[in-house]
Amino acid sequence: MTGRFHAVGDGSGLEKGDSFHREEIQLALRNRGIPLEGLRYPITPTGMHYLLTHFDIPDADVAKWRLTVGGLVSNPMALTLDEIRKRPVRRIASTMECAGNGRALMSPRPISQPWMLEAVSTAEWTGTPLRELLAEAGISTEAVEVLFTGLDKGFQGDELQHYQRSLSLSEANRDEVLLAYEMNGLPLQPQHGYPLRLIVPGWYGMTSVKWLDRIEAIDKSFDGYQMTGSYRYSQAADDQGEPVTLMRVRSLMVPPGFPDFLTRTRVVNAGQTRLTGRAWAGRSDIVRVELSTDGGYSWSDANLGERPSPFAWREWWFEWEAIPGEHDLCVRATDAEGNTQPLSQPLNFLGMGNNAVQRISVMVE
Amino acid sequence: MTGRFHAVGDGSGLEKGDSFHREEIQLALRNRGIPLEGLRYPITPTGMHYLLTHFDIPDADVAKWRLTVGGLVSNPMALTLDEIRKRPVRRIASTMECAGNGRALMSPRPISQPWMLEAVSTAEWTGTPLRELLAEAGISTEAVEVLFTGLDKGFQGDELQHYQRSLSLSEANRDEVLLAYEMNGLPLQPQHGYPLRLIVPGWYGMTSVKWLDRIEAIDKSFDGYQMTGSYRYSQAADDQGEPVTLMRVRSLMVPPGFPDFLTRTRVVNAGQTRLTGRAWAGRSDIVRVELSTDGGYSWSDANLGERPSPFAWREWWFEWEAIPGEHDLCVRATDAEGNTQPLSQPLNFLGMGNNAVQRISVMVE
Repeated sequence: MTGRFHAVGDGSGLEKGDSFHREEIQLALRNRGIPLEGLRYPITPTGMHYLLTHFDIPDADVAKWRLTVGGLVSNPMALTLDEIRKRPVRRIASTMECAGNGRALMSPRPISQPWMLEAVSTAEWTGTPLRELLAEAGISTEAVEVLFTGLDKGFQGDELQHYQRSLSLSEANRDEVLLAYEMNGLPLQPQHGYPLRLIVPGWYGMTSVKWLDRIEAIDKSFDGYQMTGSYRYSQAADDQGEPVTLMRVRSLMVPPGFPDFLTRTRVVNAGQTRLTGRAWAGRSDIVRVELSTDGGYSWSDANLGERPSPFAWREWWFEWEAIPGEHDLCVRATDAEGNTQPLSQPLNFLGMGNNAVQRISVMVE
Repeated sequence: MTGRFHAVGDGSGLEKGDSFHREEIQLALRNRGIPLEGLRYPITPTGMHYLLTHFDIPDADVAKWRLTVGGLVSNPMALTLDEIRKRPVRRIASTMECAGNGRALMSPRPISQPWMLEAVSTAEWTGTPLRELLAEAGISTEAVEVLFTGLDKGFQGDELQHYQRSLSLSEANRDEVLLAYEMNGLPLQPQHGYPLRLIVPGWYGMTSVKWLDRIEAIDKSFDGYQMTGSYRYSQAADDQGEPVTLMRVRSLMVPPGFPDFLTRTRVVNAGQTRLTGRAWAGRSDIVRVELSTDGGYSWSDANLGERPSPFAWREWWFEWEAIPGEHDLCVRATDAEGNTQPLSQPLNFLGMGNNAVQRISVMVE
């Protein structure tokens, strides 16, 4: 808090003097973002992958654990992990972002997990296609949704619940939806959903239910807390708004130069500097990434690189001739449907889907 | 913030109305604690291990990387990772705690990484003994310390620096000090120090320098920032105080029952409940763990279990007959030298070595 870095903007996007509540710091210490320099890896190292855990990480006993498949099906099942591993195998690199990423940059700020920018990562998930399991179970013609229930349990919105989310039959039956038991080639770690989790590429992370306990075909829209009380684009406590679904177009930059420990202010050496990062957009592709080094007044196209799969982020880079002084770096992506990131933070009651352009203030010396 | 959990203490030890600074939330989102339910594992899963990164995680190129061993030695070396892996191998389970663990529970609260209780974990580290490497390098009789420099670079205390810490010759030559290239049986992940890190069992984590670049024998006490400007038990900005060294005796409990998402308030079902946790103390052993269910007025002995190695935490458990109402659970450990945890938070200027007893408020229903 002393010395040269005290008065300089750190580019976090937070206002000077912002203060945070005890509830927010407790959640920030439990949940885990990717350090933004981790964007340098096309596949995020397992221990760097972001994590949002609603309740406690359950202690699953795989000897007793069974995935039950029931509800409106003609052939109910209870499968061991070994039985699931013997089914057809598919491996997909998939980018996952928390729907609340960017919440703490909104003003006013909804009080929940106070993500700034770090709740996104990419992993290679290995599992078996959900669709084939549903076909084998024989979904009744009365069914309209598939409900996924996790082993994790706690209170939210004053309601004791297991974590539960549903998908429409058509979404649940998409090719790329997996029941995953490996992450980056190794068995799931407990915090990532061991023994089995759902992976729904393109959607925000709340849909990829961890610690799967049961799958049920149901005949109406599931109205549990995680569908109606959270994960909505709403404008007030009593507004249902629209459900949060696919990830909005977004790009992030690896912060260049060196940080100050306390303030995270960045210092960059003058001269040629390669700015790099990743961009993604639900199920769409990234067709353009633009850079601004003057706070968003003027923009230049970045170069687009590879993506690990059609469901993963695309690399971009930009050669910057850094001249001494303070610079406000911004990055903005556009997807194949023509959606572009907004310059200012969108506002909604629960702090969902904030895809405003990232801004990083740096001092070039 | 609404409903039944609003008015109830959450047992974090923080005061109602405490607010946190932007600098603290930024650090809390970058650095990672162990979710306390992770204390159930004798060896912490890799991705749950706590992490404190001063600057940015470096991008080491192992093809170019060499560990240089120099300074006051007769046989300077520059070793590839393969050459280091061919040296004698030792594997040690070691508990590591951040010296700043508990900082955010102090009042007044030093502004830095705002750990509450979660900056401790245990891993199995595989590497080669430092002592044999130093012997081969031939340490000069003029040398008094060994200096360790990491690849990570940034500003702290207004000083641009690589992360650097030193050890006395006698500490550096202890049997258990390792140059580690594997964690839990796999190559180090980038965030844990890839390709090579120092592991100094018994000491707080700042000593186990990550991303090792060079090792130098030097003829005086190293006075760099991380030795003199930080990691001191001091009482004011201009007080040097004593250096932080071995981990103080401490015990932690897995929070029982179920949490509320936002407040982390715990609810426990009435009846027989097994309380469990881990306790550790530098290089010493744990000889006693005591539980209190009335906020520290009365204490009962817990059962002591195994520890994965002489350098790792010891399991404990306690059978509790939980009766309805609010209860303030506390746990306190004593080591083989007779050191016991204090009931109130120790105070020092940098927020180091807080080993006060953990308190968890729970509602039994």
